[in-house]
Amino acid sequence: MTNERLGRVRAAMAAQGMQVLVLMPDANLQYLSGLTFHRGKRLTLLLIPVDERTPTFVIPALEEHRAAATSRLAANYFPWHDADGPTQALQAAVAAAIGDGPQQIGVEFTALRVMELRALEAALLAVTTVDAMPLLSDVRMVKDADELAAMERAVAIIETALGEGIAQIRAGMSERQLARIIADGILAAGGAGEAFETMIASGPNGASPHHNNSDRGFVAGDLITIDCGAIYNGYLSDITRTVALGEPTEEARRIYELVRAANAAGIAAVKPFVSGETIDRAARNVIEAGGYGAYFVHRTGHGLGIEAHELPNIVMGSTQPLAIGTTFTVEPGIYVPSIGGVRIEDNVVITEDGVRVLTSFPRELLVIETT
Amino acid sequence: MTNERLGRVRAAMAAQGMQVLVLMPDANLQYLSGLTFHRGKRLTLLLIPVDERTPTFVIPALEEHRAAATSRLAANYFPWHDADGPTQALQAAVAAAIGDGPQQIGVEFTALRVMELRALEAALLAVTTVDAMPLLSDVRMVKDADELAAMERAVAIIETALGEGIAQIRAGMSERQLARIIADGILAAGGAGEAFETMIASGPNGASPHHNNSDRGFVAGDLITIDCGAIYNGYLSDITRTVALGEPTEEARRIYELVRAANAAGIAAVKPFVSGETIDRAARNVIEAGGYGAYFVHRTGHGLGIEAHELPNIVMGSTQPLAIGTTFTVEPGIYVPSIGGVRIEDNVVITEDGVRVLTSFPRELLVIETT
Repeated sequence: MTNERLGRVRAAMAAQGMQVLVLMPDANLQYLSGLTFHRGKRLTLLLIPVDERTPTFVIPALEEHRAAATSRLAANYFPWHDADGPTQALQAAVAAAIGDGPQQIGVEFTALRVMELRALEAALLAVTTVDAMPLLSDVRMVKDADELAAMERAVAIIETALGEGIAQIRAGMSERQLARIIADGILAAGGAGEAFETMIASGPNGASPHHNNSDRGFVAGDLITIDCGAIYNGYLSDITRTVALGEPTEEARRIYELVRAANAAGIAAVKPFVSGETIDRAARNVIEAGGYGAYFVHRTGHGLGIEAHELPNIVMGSTQPLAIGTTFTVEPGIYVPSIGGVRIEDNVVITEDGVRVLTSFPRELLVIETT
Repeated sequence: MTNERLGRVRAAMAAQGMQVLVLMPDANLQYLSGLTFHRGKRLTLLLIPVDERTPTFVIPALEEHRAAATSRLAANYFPWHDADGPTQALQAAVAAAIGDGPQQIGVEFTALRVMELRALEAALLAVTTVDAMPLLSDVRMVKDADELAAMERAVAIIETALGEGIAQIRAGMSERQLARIIADGILAAGGAGEAFETMIASGPNGASPHHNNSDRGFVAGDLITIDCGAIYNGYLSDITRTVALGEPTEEARRIYELVRAANAAGIAAVKPFVSGETIDRAARNVIEAGGYGAYFVHRTGHGLGIEAHELPNIVMGSTQPLAIGTTFTVEPGIYVPSIGGVRIEDNVVITEDGVRVLTSFPRELLVIETT
C-alpha cells in the first residue's frame, strides 16, 4: 500500500516535472509514512526523489528508532543529535537522495517554515521552491483500501458514540454536557479521539452553522444539531444529525424533510467523474425548490480523510471530475433565525457503480420524548 | 499594558538593529494583540516598525471586524477579499508601515511559512530575514500585571479541578477516566480548556515522566501522578501532584519526601537574577544526596505563560540571569521502574523579594483510603 502511495506521488511529480519533494511533519508526511511528530523546533524532513532513489529522512536521533520501527515507508535515515545540530545530517541526506542535480524542490507552502527552508537553502546551492500542496492534495483525494478501512472504522466508532449520546438527551442537559458524552463515547468505542470539537447547536443556537457549544440547557421544542467525528488510525469520520426534543413545529418538520431530501439528492448525484459543482447543484436545487435557498448558507460538502477538510470542495466552481475512490461529505443544511437549524451529513466514497455511503445512522427525524 | 508590551518589543528590536518585525498568527501575535486566529491558508500578518509608525495588519476582510473590535493593540488594517487575493493589501501595508527603507525583516523562523515568506518577498524588493524568535522569547519571559493575573486565575481553576478529581479517585477508576474528570472540572471552574492533555500515570506507568493515559484501573498501593493545567484568557497553569491509593511502601514514602524537599529547595533558590542552572542545581542536589540522582531524568522546570513550554529552561547550562516577573515551573521528580514515579510541580514568579509561588495546592502526601 505504501509503495502504491509513493508511486502515485512520484507519478504526479513526474507529470509536472518536480524532481524532488521535501515534506515536513504534517498530513502529507503522515499519508506516506503513517508517522506523526510533534511540530517542534528540531529539524525533521523527508526527501523524496522522483526517481528510484530511496526516500530519506533527516530526523532527530531520539525519533529514529520509533520512526524506523513504525513507518510504512521504506526509507534511509540520517539522524542528528542536539549536540551536533542538523547541518551535517541534512547535507549527507541531500547527497544521498538528491545529489548535485536539481535545484528546484517541491515543498508545502502552507506547512514548511522558514526554519526548514533556510536549512535546505544552506544544504542545496541556490535552491528554488515550488508549492507541492496542489499536487499532494490531488493525490490524497483518492483513497486506497487501507484508508477506506480506517475511515469505515472511524465511522462505526462515531455512530456508536452518537447513538449513545442521543439516547441520553433530556430536557435540561446542556450542549457542553452532550458534547462531552459523545467525546467519551468515542474513546470508549475505540477511537483515538475527536476528529474535531463535537458541535452541539440547540434551539435558536442551531441557526448558526458553526456554533460554539454553550451551557444552554435543552428545552422541549428544540431542534438539536450534533456534528461530530472520530479518529481511527489517523483517519477521520464526520457526521451530523439533527434530532427534536419533543414534538417539533410543522415548519421545523418541513425544513427537516427538505434537508433530508437534499441530502438524498446530493448522494444520488455521486458517480465516477462527477464534479463537486454538480453534486452541490443537486442538493441545492431541492432546498431552493422548497423555498429555503437563502437559508442554505454553506457548501454541500468537503473532502475527508487524514484532515477534516481536504479536497474536493463540493461547491459551485468546483468543476474537476472526481475519480473512483474519492471521499467527501454531503451535508446540506437550513438555518433559520427564528427556528434554529437542521443539517444532515454523511460520508461517501465514489465507486465504480456510483457511490457507497459510509455512514448508516438513521436519517428519519427522531423525536425524543420529553416526559 | 499593550503599549508597554509593544514598547518592550520595540526596545529589543532597537537593541539588535531590527527595523521591522513581521508576525504571523501564533503565540507572539497573541502576546501583543490578544488575538488568536485559525492557522489557515489566508494571509494574515502584523507588520511592526521599530519606529513610531503604527503597527499594521494585513488581514482577511472577514476577520477585520473581530480583530479591530477585540485587539489590545492600536493598529492599521489592510483587509483583503478572497476575490482579490492579498497582494495589493500587503503592498499597501508595506508602503504604510515600512516604506522603501529597510530590506531586512525579523520573522519567526519556527512559525512563518513559505506561503507568508514568498508573499513578503514579492512585496519587498530583495528582502532578507533574521530570526526574531530569540528576541520575542526573551521579552515574553517577563510577565506584566495582566499576564500574572490571568496565570493566577488559571492556577485557581486547575487547583479546583485537581481537588475535585482527587476526591473521586477510587480503586478501579482508570487513568483516562480521571483525566476526563479533571478536563470537565476545568470547564466547570471557568477555564477555557486544558493547557495540555491531562496526564495520569498510575502504579508502574508512573516510571515514565511522559506517560500516555491508558485504561489501566487504579489498585491499592499505586502512586498516581497527575500533571494538568488550565487556560484562562490565553494564559496557562501547569501543576503536578502525586497521591497514594492505600498505604504506600516505605521506599515510596522516602522518594516522595525527597521530591518534596527538592521542590522546596528549588523554590527557595528563586530570587532576582538567579540563573535556571542554579535553581536546577538546588533541586537536584537534594535528590542526588538522597541517592536517587540517576532517577531524576529531566530538567527541573520550564517557562510558562501563553505556551506550556516557554523560556527560561531551568536546567544545567541555562546561565542567563532571570529578571523580576519571570514565570516558570519547578517540578523535580523521581522515576523508578519497579516502583513508579513521584513529581511535584509548582508555578512561580520572581519578585523583588525573591519568589511568589502561584500554586498553593497541598504538597504533603495524600493517602486515599481504599475502603
